Amino acid sequence: MRDKFVNFIENLQDKITETLENIDGEAKFHQDLWERPEGGGGRTRVIENGAVFEKGGVNISKVHGALAPAMQQYFKVGDVDFFACGLSLVLHPKNPYAPTVHANWRYFEMFEKDGTLVDSWFGGGQDLTPYYLFEEDAKHFHEVSKAACDAHEKTFYPEYKKKCDEYFHNAHRGEARGIGGLFFDYLKATETQSMQDWYNFVTQVGDSFLSAYVPIIERRKDLPYGERERNWQEVRRGRYVEFNLVHDKGTLFGLKTNGRIESILMSLPPVVQWKYDHHPEPGSEEEKLVEVLKNPKDWA
Amino acid sequence: MRDKFVNFIENLQDKITETLENIDGEAKFHQDLWERPEGGGGRTRVIENGAVFEKGGVNISKVHGALAPAMQQYFKVGDVDFFACGLSLVLHPKNPYAPTVHANWRYFEMFEKDGTLVDSWFGGGQDLTPYYLFEEDAKHFHEVSKAACDAHEKTFYPEYKKKCDEYFHNAHRGEARGIGGLFFDYLKATETQSMQDWYNFVTQVGDSFLSAYVPIIERRKDLPYGERERNWQEVRRGRYVEFNLVHDKGTLFGLKTNGRIESILMSLPPVVQWKYDHHPEPGSEEEKLVEVLKNPKDWA
Repeated sequence: MRDKFVNFIENLQDKITETLENIDGEAKFHQDLWERPEGGGGRTRVIENGAVFEKGGVNISKVHGALAPAMQQYFKVGDVDFFACGLSLVLHPKNPYAPTVHANWRYFEMFEKDGTLVDSWFGGGQDLTPYYLFEEDAKHFHEVSKAACDAHEKTFYPEYKKKCDEYFHNAHRGEARGIGGLFFDYLKATETQSMQDWYNFVTQVGDSFLSAYVPIIERRKDLPYGERERNWQEVRRGRYVEFNLVHDKGTLFGLKTNGRIESILMSLPPVVQWKYDHHPEPGSEEEKLVEVLKNPKDWA
Repeated sequence: MRDKFVNFIENLQDKITETLENIDGEAKFHQDLWERPEGGGGRTRVIENGAVFEKGGVNISKVHGALAPAMQQYFKVGDVDFFACGLSLVLHPKNPYAPTVHANWRYFEMFEKDGTLVDSWFGGGQDLTPYYLFEEDAKHFHEVSKAACDAHEKTFYPEYKKKCDEYFHNAHRGEARGIGGLFFDYLKATETQSMQDWYNFVTQVGDSFLSAYVPIIERRKDLPYGERERNWQEVRRGRYVEFNLVHDKGTLFGLKTNGRIESILMSLPPVVQWKYDHHPEPGSEEEKLVEVLKNPKDWA
């Protein structure tokens, strides 16, 4: 399973970065190979100052070793070893009409020092963070995500859509980070789903990513915009930073367990503003977005 | 003690905002009076887009009511009431050669539902976050802080300077937020220090703030700078955001206990950048700053 999933994310990283470079037309991904002193490493690919993508990262990592004490406590296990691999991406387009997107697909194992498997599961998801609401885009992103779920089990989409709305929630602002998508975790073997079934599901979701996002970025990347839209995008990016640094478990665990800081924080937007007590004008397009973030909708 | 300290912070807020408006010469503080539904309220004063101050807040608050469950757990107490008041300020100058400054002086009480005092203490401090290191400025800020301490007890400055270096530490970056200053908390009555003694100490530190910061901002506010210095300032401001959102206990408690979000997050800088894997050039002025943040120095 390890080798199969590592192979999957390696190929998917290639496919995604190649497609995104073609869309951008100017910037190329810069690759950093890194090693983790305690075991494993990763292939970080970052794009910056492109024609379409102002900043983005499409990273894979495959790490293993002793489970850090903070993680042992979190998972309520003893002194075990772990193996984790995954692909994690965040894209911040330049155009305020084009949404930021985040996705992650991962596989995790814990085992005793003698190699006996203790537990294993898949996790991940994909979610969209627009600065202006195009219902057509939200519907498209959710419908592609739903189709990937429905191919496996009709209950998956409603369940993982709800989990996504719950997880990517900026509680201190009383609003969602974006218009959601899918979020799933601890997908473990059950009577009805083997690990192979979960592998099939997670890889189908991963393979659906480009068809979920590419039509949206193609439609929005060249729309004309001005200072107003750019300011709004930068202020909203502040909310993205707030979520990632205050609430996102993955980011916080990474920071507290000596993860590779630059790969973790590549998710942060390139240029961000914080204005005091900023509110969109009543009846504006900006307010329309905030309304949907305060009251998540069903899109598919 | 409550009334005395409230009176002190009200007057100090007036004095500080008046002085800063004179330095800025263009922008005025905008005042928001707010009420806390559960008891108390505050007087938030924010300056934005000034000639000198790009963003800043000088806020006082006086709140009371039942201690939130999260805070009960933190303080290891039962279902008690609390009273808290304080002045909190953050100033982000426009000029990259002028340092950001933060200060806070506060008084806290916990008491039983029948009004019996359970505990009370003072806390606070003041610290400087430069983007370029001027040793003269660092020395001045620390010497004024030290003088305010030394007037009370020779052990205070070394103790609170050290606490400041420890507290304002961006652990995930392995560097300090700035060049430090003073940080103290839980200043409670002892055999040698009465609450009145602590009041005298904390108010003397508060009264020293303007003489610690004003000469520095006056020296740096008009220095010529270019895009390089501005970019560096915005990248370093990212570290400020990281500290406040990942590590700062006050911010996190505020966000998790339904504090007034806009008053809490007014500390965040106005314009911020995150670049992937950004490092200052070897031997540059930018690197000189980072060296000092990695290895805090004695300045006084």
